Amino acid sequence: MTLKLHCFGESGNSYKAALPLTLAGLDWEPIWVDFFSGAARSPEYRALNPMGEAPVLVTPEFTISQSGVIQQWIIDETGRFGGRDKAEAREVLRWQFWDNHKGSSQFGTLRFVMNFLPEQHRNPDVIAFLQGRAKAALAVLESELSKRDFLVGDGPTMADFSASAYLYYPEPFGFDRASLPAIDAWLTRLSDLPGWKHPYDLMPGSPADRA
Amino acid sequence: MTLKLHCFGESGNSYKAALPLTLAGLDWEPIWVDFFSGAARSPEYRALNPMGEAPVLVTPEFTISQSGVIQQWIIDETGRFGGRDKAEAREVLRWQFWDNHKGSSQFGTLRFVMNFLPEQHRNPDVIAFLQGRAKAALAVLESELSKRDFLVGDGPTMADFSASAYLYYPEPFGFDRASLPAIDAWLTRLSDLPGWKHPYDLMPGSPADRA
Repeated sequence: MTLKLHCFGESGNSYKAALPLTLAGLDWEPIWVDFFSGAARSPEYRALNPMGEAPVLVTPEFTISQSGVIQQWIIDETGRFGGRDKAEAREVLRWQFWDNHKGSSQFGTLRFVMNFLPEQHRNPDVIAFLQGRAKAALAVLESELSKRDFLVGDGPTMADFSASAYLYYPEPFGFDRASLPAIDAWLTRLSDLPGWKHPYDLMPGSPADRA
Repeated sequence: MTLKLHCFGESGNSYKAALPLTLAGLDWEPIWVDFFSGAARSPEYRALNPMGEAPVLVTPEFTISQSGVIQQWIIDETGRFGGRDKAEAREVLRWQFWDNHKGSSQFGTLRFVMNFLPEQHRNPDVIAFLQGRAKAALAVLESELSKRDFLVGDGPTMADFSASAYLYYPEPFGFDRASLPAIDAWLTRLSDLPGWKHPYDLMPGSPADRA
C-alpha cells in the first residue's frame, strides 16, 4: 500500500521525511496540509496529530508524526541512511536531536518570522535573537563539515537530511550560503545525489503556488 | 566502570540523562561543567563535544552528547523506560523529538533568558515571543495528560523524563503549575517514583551554590 505523508512544500520538517522516503525508493504520496489557512488546527487534523504539526506519516500499521521518528522508521524499514554500525547509528540520532533542538528549530522559526508572519508581527528584536541562535548552529555545522564530507561516516545519512532541510529554501533568513564554504559544498554534495529534489518540487504547496 | 556524566544542576537537558541513569540503577557520577563561567566553550570541552553543550556521557566504549541519545542508550542497556513494544517505542521517540523541538527547547531558553542572562539583555519582546511558544507546548501537554497518566502507555518512560525536566525548576518563566492540573498531577506522579530526585539534588551546581 502506498504510504501517505501529510505535508506541505514550505515545511522543512516535512521535507526531512519526504526526501529520504524518495531516495530510499519507498512508494509514497503527499497529502497537502493547507497549513497557512489553519488546516493543521482543524479538529480533523488534531485527531490525526494532537501536536498539530506536519509531517504525519500514515502506514498500513500506524500513523505517526515527528520527522525524526519517520526518518528512524525509514532506516529500520530499508536499511538506508542510518550509518554503517551501532556507533554511526548513535551519531545519526545525535545529529537528528541536535538539529531538532538547535538547528532547524532556529532556521525554521526564523524563516517563518521573517517571511510568513504578517509584516506587522515581524519583530526586529525577536529576529535578532533568533539570528544569534541560528548563527551559532551554522557555526557548529561549518566547523564539523570542514573536517569531513558528511555529518556521520562517509556517506549521506538522516543526519544530513535533517540538518540541511531548511537550508535549500529561497526565502531569506540571514543564511548566506556563499559565506560558509563547507556548508555550501555539503549542500551541493547532497543535491547531487541521484533522485534528489528540492522541497518545492517534491511536495505540494509553495509561495509560488499561492502567488 | 562508573559512567561519567558531564552536567550541571541548572541544565534540564543534563537532568534528562541524570534522572533515568539513577532510576534505571546504573552506576554513574556527575562531573560538573561550570557552564556559567564559559567552561563549555573551552578547547578541552569542545574536544569532548564540538556542539559545546551538556550533558555528555562517557562510557568505556564511547562518548556522546544529546540527552535524547543518552536516554535511548539507557533503554537499550537496561530495557527500562522505553515502552512495552515497538509501537510504544516509536511513541517514546516521538515525544522525545517533540520535546527537543517544541517543549524543553522553549522552556529552557525562556528560563535562561528570564533568569540567567544579565538583566540588561532580558528583552521583553523576546520573552513574549518565547512565552507564546512555551504556552502552545504546555497546552499540548495539558491536553494529552488530561487523557492519560503518562505520555506513552501506562507507566513512566523517557517521554515523561524529557518533557518534564524543565518543569521542576524554581526559577520563574511563566509556567504556573497550579493553573495546569493535568500537568501538575503528572509532575507529582513522576516525583513520587521511588528514587526520584530534584535536579538540584542530583547534579552539582545550582544558583544556591553560587549565592
